[in-house]
Amino acid sequence: MARPMMAPRLAAVRARLAELDADAALLTFLPDIRWAVGFTGSNGILLVTENDAHFLTDGRYQAQANHEVVGAEIHVPGYKLFEFIAERKLLDDSKTCIVQSDHLTVDELDRLRGIVQDVRFEPEPRLLVREVASKSEEEIDKIRAAQTITDAVYGDLLRLIKPGVSEQNIAAEIVYQHLKRGCDRMSFEPIVAAGARGALPHARPSNNQIKQGDMVVIDMGGVKDGYASDMTRTVAVGDPEEEARVVYQIVLDAQNAAIEAARAGMTGRELDQVARSVIEEAGYGEAFSHSLGHGIGLQTHEWPSLSSRTEAKLPLGVAVTIEPGIYLPGKYGVRIEDIVVLTEDGCTNLTASPKELLVL
Amino acid sequence: MARPMMAPRLAAVRARLAELDADAALLTFLPDIRWAVGFTGSNGILLVTENDAHFLTDGRYQAQANHEVVGAEIHVPGYKLFEFIAERKLLDDSKTCIVQSDHLTVDELDRLRGIVQDVRFEPEPRLLVREVASKSEEEIDKIRAAQTITDAVYGDLLRLIKPGVSEQNIAAEIVYQHLKRGCDRMSFEPIVAAGARGALPHARPSNNQIKQGDMVVIDMGGVKDGYASDMTRTVAVGDPEEEARVVYQIVLDAQNAAIEAARAGMTGRELDQVARSVIEEAGYGEAFSHSLGHGIGLQTHEWPSLSSRTEAKLPLGVAVTIEPGIYLPGKYGVRIEDIVVLTEDGCTNLTASPKELLVL
Repeated sequence: MARPMMAPRLAAVRARLAELDADAALLTFLPDIRWAVGFTGSNGILLVTENDAHFLTDGRYQAQANHEVVGAEIHVPGYKLFEFIAERKLLDDSKTCIVQSDHLTVDELDRLRGIVQDVRFEPEPRLLVREVASKSEEEIDKIRAAQTITDAVYGDLLRLIKPGVSEQNIAAEIVYQHLKRGCDRMSFEPIVAAGARGALPHARPSNNQIKQGDMVVIDMGGVKDGYASDMTRTVAVGDPEEEARVVYQIVLDAQNAAIEAARAGMTGRELDQVARSVIEEAGYGEAFSHSLGHGIGLQTHEWPSLSSRTEAKLPLGVAVTIEPGIYLPGKYGVRIEDIVVLTEDGCTNLTASPKELLVL
Repeated sequence: MARPMMAPRLAAVRARLAELDADAALLTFLPDIRWAVGFTGSNGILLVTENDAHFLTDGRYQAQANHEVVGAEIHVPGYKLFEFIAERKLLDDSKTCIVQSDHLTVDELDRLRGIVQDVRFEPEPRLLVREVASKSEEEIDKIRAAQTITDAVYGDLLRLIKPGVSEQNIAAEIVYQHLKRGCDRMSFEPIVAAGARGALPHARPSNNQIKQGDMVVIDMGGVKDGYASDMTRTVAVGDPEEEARVVYQIVLDAQNAAIEAARAGMTGRELDQVARSVIEEAGYGEAFSHSLGHGIGLQTHEWPSLSSRTEAKLPLGVAVTIEPGIYLPGKYGVRIEDIVVLTEDGCTNLTASPKELLVL
């Protein structure tokens, strides 16, 4: 069922070639290769020319490539993939071949140029970010399936969040529950940050034990069928101080305002500003120390960033996180994060977990 | 206690500069930066000149850098790290600066050359692999600590391996138990491969359920304090067929022969050949389809590879895996893996789990 979806993606790669005045592209970034032809393994390159497409991998992936790859001829020459391009003259009809300069090392390009001669290799960063950002219905369903697992894990997790339990133990449970429910792996190492540790936006789970009165930030996601989920919730363990309730509501208002405003065609900067202005007007602007969100899909963090530096327009069908936060050093942090998909006149929220302040 | 260990490492970087006729090096590979100055975060670069060392990171890591980094001046200029090198003229006294060409994208080097002018950036792959490979006593203790967790997980796991349990459920338990016992994360996604799936050396855990009579390959490791463990065991669920017992013993004999022979100064090819010849003489040479092992430390897979292509001599103190295997398509696979540290006249095995064939 899924396979016929993929042919248009090679057409999209070729459309980029035309824009760039090139007649071939060598894809080396595995998530883009998966997007283009369906391969899910850990080694392979995809050569797209005006009329052909060649996928090269090593012997470990012979059966898997035969099963997965659609739209490209499969070659399994062993580990020497660049040499195979030269030997089989796969680029002999090409003058200019785009390489993914943000996903190719200096060493790899040197070797490639030494092995495959008489072709001009033209470095190009962010080659397919716009194409990959716009999700198909099928991709949105996969992100939703991953997020549904994360929502279920969250529901079950709440009974474990209580005084005396360490952040590390809750993080271990988060990983276990995602894997038991069918995730392939985690989108990232979960963040569980209680009390003052919640004021560090990238705190790693420690042996710090939850105390009565703590605000606890939980940021987690799993990968199912290649697609990532990502959600943050902040809960109170016992009655929080009054300011924490106020701060929580400001973050929630900022998030709701952004979700309300989000639609395709806005710039990343505009959407960031919707949430940021709510927090600024409440007097906590300095405490919202990161950008509003990021694209998500085959990668947990994809283009576009929703930040004050993103002048690009957000494409139709892009999946992005909306995750404002307020961090008060020495006290606590609050962050609330959903995934939404942008439509022509609004957005669809893929996250089902409740957002009113939970006092456990 | 650990900190005074680190100064000699900057001297080792400078010794490489002298060998390469350069007067500076820009390190961009985070495990090497951690090795050289102790930083454990996810963003940073290290500039080493003949007389100075500068570590640059972003605002998220200010406190962490102050706490961790030894031997280098710390700068926190925000995200624009290359621009800071130019603005502060950190390379003004340097003519030739080595860059890690296997850990720098084409795009990054282009940007660097555009921003920092009047310096020749010289790409060099595998800049510090020999230096990083030779482990200190402190590093060996850390690998052993990670491996001790893996040994304990294995001991507890055996009761779960029985007919009707899926590979995925066992893998979830492996992850959970490593994290609960204090690992920061996994070295890699565990492999649990039962029956014919065990014949795929890189099988991912599936919903395949263990059956009576299956051989089950379990390959797992966790990261503790930055250092990785890695162990494979193969167990039988119920009495295996006679050939499986024979194959198991051949793999174990091959592994024991390699451990017996291993010492610093051999080449990777020679050590691989010790194990390979045992398997070849038993008539299963074709079925040992990968190399004998790999270096391990801050990365799960480091230089050197123990393969027929490794002509390099194995340095004193290197930690390597010894993991021969036999894979019989459609039937089963057997692999047995320990980590050993090479000494002048032999090696020290860091793995404690038993290796006689367990019939569960």
